[in-house]
Amino acid sequence: MRVSVIGGSSVSDEEYEQAVAVGRRLAEHGHTVVCGGLGGVMRGVCEGASEAGGRTVGILPGDDTAAANEFVEVPIATGLGHARNALVVMNGDGVIAIDGGPGTLSELGYASVYDRPVAGLGTLDVPAVRQVDTPTAAVAYVEDRA
Amino acid sequence: MRVSVIGGSSVSDEEYEQAVAVGRRLAEHGHTVVCGGLGGVMRGVCEGASEAGGRTVGILPGDDTAAANEFVEVPIATGLGHARNALVVMNGDGVIAIDGGPGTLSELGYASVYDRPVAGLGTLDVPAVRQVDTPTAAVAYVEDRA
Amino acid sequence: MRVSVIGGSSVSDEEYEQAVAVGRRLAEHGHTVVCGGLGGVMRGVCEGASEAGGRTVGILPGDDTAAANEFVEVPIATGLGHARNALVVMNGDGVIAIDGGPGTLSELGYASVYDRPVAGLGTLDVPAVRQVDTPTAAVAYVEDRA
Amino acid sequence: MRVSVIGGSSVSDEEYEQAVAVGRRLAEHGHTVVCGGLGGVMRGVCEGASEAGGRTVGILPGDDTAAANEFVEVPIATGLGHARNALVVMNGDGVIAIDGGPGTLSELGYASVYDRPVAGLGTLDVPAVRQVDTPTAAVAYVEDRA
Repeated sequence: MRVSVIGGSSVSDEEYEQAVAVGRRLAEHGHTVVCGGLGGVMRGVCEGASEAGGRTVGILPGDDTAAANEFVEVPIATGLGHARNALVVMNGDGVIAIDGGPGTLSELGYASVYDRPVAGLGTLDVPAVRQVDTPTAAVAYVEDRA
Repeated sequence: MRVSVIGGSSVSDEEYEQAVAVGRRLAEHGHTVVCGGLGGVMRGVCEGASEAGGRTVGILPGDDTAAANEFVEVPIATGLGHARNALVVMNGDGVIAIDGGPGTLSELGYASVYDRPVAGLGTLDVPAVRQVDTPTAAVAYVEDRA
Repeated sequence: MRVSVIGGSSVSDEEYEQAVAVGRRLAEHGHTVVCGGLGGVMRGVCEGASEAGGRTVGILPGDDTAAANEFVEVPIATGLGHARNALVVMNGDGVIAIDGGPGTLSELGYASVYDRPVAGLGTLDVPAVRQVDTPTAAVAYVEDRA
Repeated sequence: MRVSVIGGSSVSDEEYEQAVAVGRRLAEHGHTVVCGGLGGVMRGVCEGASEAGGRTVGILPGDDTAAANEFVEVPIATGLGHARNALVVMNGDGVIAIDGGPGTLSELGYASVYDRPVAGLGTLDVPAVRQVDTPTAAVAYVEDRA
């Protein structure tokens, strides 16, 4: 399946490592990572998935695919700005949120709009997010519910 | 100024009346109402503003302006589906949220993305929303901060 | 009704005056002008409509309404870049094209997609555009067909 | 590189075979096919590329990836309706147009907006399209210019 991974574009080392671990786990289980294609959590999850031989799709806010981080295999330029957040969520069967700021909040709203299960690792406390403790638990949760 | 009013498309009578009161107050103070153009809170705020002679803009998810509620003066069709939530928030100098569901959550996220002040009347409890008790207080808050 | 007026953002004096005449005529006939909100033909048609007391809506590519020309009464920020061209056409019951470049060509395509009648004044020669000689004839054509 | 292939969603057998040949040629030369993901030319080009082991990306108008034709390897749901035409063109380094109707015209406009070289096989006669006679010539043209 495809899993959207969302979260802050500027993160701590620990959060970055969590994103890497989520990406690695998703790839090991044969899933495709969908994300916003830029830095922070988006880069970490692509790095982890890429190392493990998985596929990564980055749906970018701008109109130039060169903005994608180096671990994005399939960059998609949109030119839509922040409205692209809807597309990031829509293209996953489930969502994993790590940390997160304002953009993440809009994506958590879209996860409910599109009825996607969401596992959260230290993310915002909003309705419909299942808070979990480990990357393994996050992947298991979306596998069960998507 | 322009104020985006967001909230549930299916609301109680009490919430509808709050939306009407917010719309009336905004119009009396010379502000334009921006909303998603459909029912519930969106209809109530347009009804209140319209009664008080104010302007109302409805930014619709579909491609047919006929979907707008009857109190929308300037309907804008987008055909963008839920991605139009970004446009609803972007076009207000401030935001007032009443009640609200998943779509509202995505809009509260965009309010932070675009750095708009948000007053909440019985809305979701997320960061950066100032919870207030009355339509008058909601309008006063966005007037002060926008 | 609402009429989308499309065309080059950088035009000759003669083309600008045609846009002004189209805007004036539309306003005199009680129609609302919809356009892309920027310069050239977009500015001319808004100037003409505004002088004649008509309503003008400008659907902008960026996320800041301050980019609208000074004759736009209702600016709508989209942040969609060139994808907003679809919205410019979708929001008119008919289309008048004056001069025009690449963006205009995309809009003429959308006019066929959305089945809008198109009158052309010195615009690109593509299928489904009725070429006319005067602003009066352009307005009359869309009034008849929309 | 990536090449956007555009054209009618309902085509003759001959046009379909041209699309298949274009897809095969692009894949043989190591290029990724980008298209709108649905039927007609979009399906043909994906079938040809898929047979030859190439990658295919389908950027869909709706919000459900299940609408993609069976030869799309990476479907991208957008929910943007026809506004997604901008994304189809933006994601190719060059464009090949086969046959085509209204949607294709909007995409040819975007090709000029984004300054992409366009080779045409029996497509609309608009400025900036280099009309060619064979799939091989179409691929060669965009390889030279992109």
